[in-house]
Amino acid sequence: MNERDALRRLAADLPHAGDDAAVVDDTVITTDMLHERTDFPPGSTRYTAGWRAVGASLSDVAAMGAEATAAVAVYADEAFDPTELDRFVAGAVDVCETVGGEYVGGDLDTHTEFTTATTAIGSVTAAGAVYRSGANPGDAVCVTGELGRSAAALRLFERGTEAAVDRANDLFRFTPRVADGRVLAGSATAMMDSSDGLARSLHQLAEASEVGVSLDRDALPVHPAVDDVVEGSGTDDATSDTADRFELAAHFGEDFELVCTVPPDAIERLRETCPAGLTRVGTVTRADGGVTVDGDALPDRGYTHG
Amino acid sequence: MNERDALRRLAADLPHAGDDAAVVDDTVITTDMLHERTDFPPGSTRYTAGWRAVGASLSDVAAMGAEATAAVAVYADEAFDPTELDRFVAGAVDVCETVGGEYVGGDLDTHTEFTTATTAIGSVTAAGAVYRSGANPGDAVCVTGELGRSAAALRLFERGTEAAVDRANDLFRFTPRVADGRVLAGSATAMMDSSDGLARSLHQLAEASEVGVSLDRDALPVHPAVDDVVEGSGTDDATSDTADRFELAAHFGEDFELVCTVPPDAIERLRETCPAGLTRVGTVTRADGGVTVDGDALPDRGYTHG
Repeated sequence: MNERDALRRLAADLPHAGDDAAVVDDTVITTDMLHERTDFPPGSTRYTAGWRAVGASLSDVAAMGAEATAAVAVYADEAFDPTELDRFVAGAVDVCETVGGEYVGGDLDTHTEFTTATTAIGSVTAAGAVYRSGANPGDAVCVTGELGRSAAALRLFERGTEAAVDRANDLFRFTPRVADGRVLAGSATAMMDSSDGLARSLHQLAEASEVGVSLDRDALPVHPAVDDVVEGSGTDDATSDTADRFELAAHFGEDFELVCTVPPDAIERLRETCPAGLTRVGTVTRADGGVTVDGDALPDRGYTHG
Repeated sequence: MNERDALRRLAADLPHAGDDAAVVDDTVITTDMLHERTDFPPGSTRYTAGWRAVGASLSDVAAMGAEATAAVAVYADEAFDPTELDRFVAGAVDVCETVGGEYVGGDLDTHTEFTTATTAIGSVTAAGAVYRSGANPGDAVCVTGELGRSAAALRLFERGTEAAVDRANDLFRFTPRVADGRVLAGSATAMMDSSDGLARSLHQLAEASEVGVSLDRDALPVHPAVDDVVEGSGTDDATSDTADRFELAAHFGEDFELVCTVPPDAIERLRETCPAGLTRVGTVTRADGGVTVDGDALPDRGYTHG
């Protein structure tokens, strides 16, 4: 059984599971595990790890349209280097501060591989929580910020030069879209984060809402770093570069932007009030339309988390 | 740097850390990681693992005197066996039900060793949260339930017969003392759980409260299973059996009972209202009295978690 099937199995039994975070009364809660082999490439710092791991959980709070309250983390490693631990905590504290939450500590454990498990909690605002299941045909499909940021970072980590690694660390420390989520909570009919990639997120949202999605490839807001790593990838083939660019922006994932559906007449106002910006990338269709990009089927394929 | 020094370092920087759970507004939150090598001995089932891992976090909620609201867990293993995953979730669901909380799902991850990270949240009641720092000289030192249960279970797991392993699994599935914690919240001056062992817990409570503790060895409520494994340990030496019994009850830990200090005139009423029972095991003294058992220094030694 792969991770996705196992997750479906978990969700089937638990009424509050299946969304980015569970909702209990007016509290949302979400937990994630990240570890060195699959999530923290060589060159990524412990400060980046603390920021990114706690940020991933805060992104799930954002995806529910909730206010971020607090986060905790378990830090597990073969040994406890005080400098590395301090840096991890500093990253965790700093990412919480960017979204108005509080990092309140956690637990330590020894483990053969550097592993961190983070949990964030948040409060549902008066606008209510936003789930994946409310999209209606005719709604506009939108994303916050820009896509492909983490994919570009990974290529820069692989490049390995000091400048590339520094830039990769910067790109890896994303801003969780909590402020945007709260703006969108009043209007979005469905919302989730793009941690599994835009393509897979759209498939999940379409399935939960029992709708289709028609995506416009040229409308995707692609992070400028993607163009840099695609241009530097050593191919002269413009068609291949374009395909690579779409692959990184739509399939790679780990971007932690918000993917949402909103009534078309709300877009103008939301675009002006979302701090990270909001871009319309498609339209919700009836379920029998499937999930398409420029009329072709969009594969339900993303980054498979280790 | 060992785990304890690292934890002190974490606590020094974070105002809400250092207690069993962090308190944010009226919510308590706590997280733990357990893994196969150190926490789930051969013979322990995945049902027991789900119960115990989530129970450990609920015990931290109990130690704050809070009501249990919800818990989540990350389940990480080399592969996802559907039966084992179902059993883990069933254990998590069932332990939450015993304390009036709700298991609301979590995350899956692949890892080279079976690892689980659990988080529980709770609500502070009108009586307020109870910390480790409020004990006063003259208060009675009390524990809920009986000590040595997990130590006895471990010896039964080692024994390896089917009957021994079944009993060990039963012993490992403790009831988190949430109901007791809520009873004690109105009266206890300091409280924590005994997960690191009674001895180490008393040292931590004494340090946080700037007091000493005088423990009465014969007063300890020892779980009957301890006598079974001590008698079966193959020694004829009664003195050594007595020492072994105290070692398992006071130092081994992992029992998840509550250790608290209460004004002596409150004991009678509390003893009648704590569902798990409450036993006075000593008295809070001035700090210069240190932590003693029958007048001798009690070593600050417990189970070192891997």
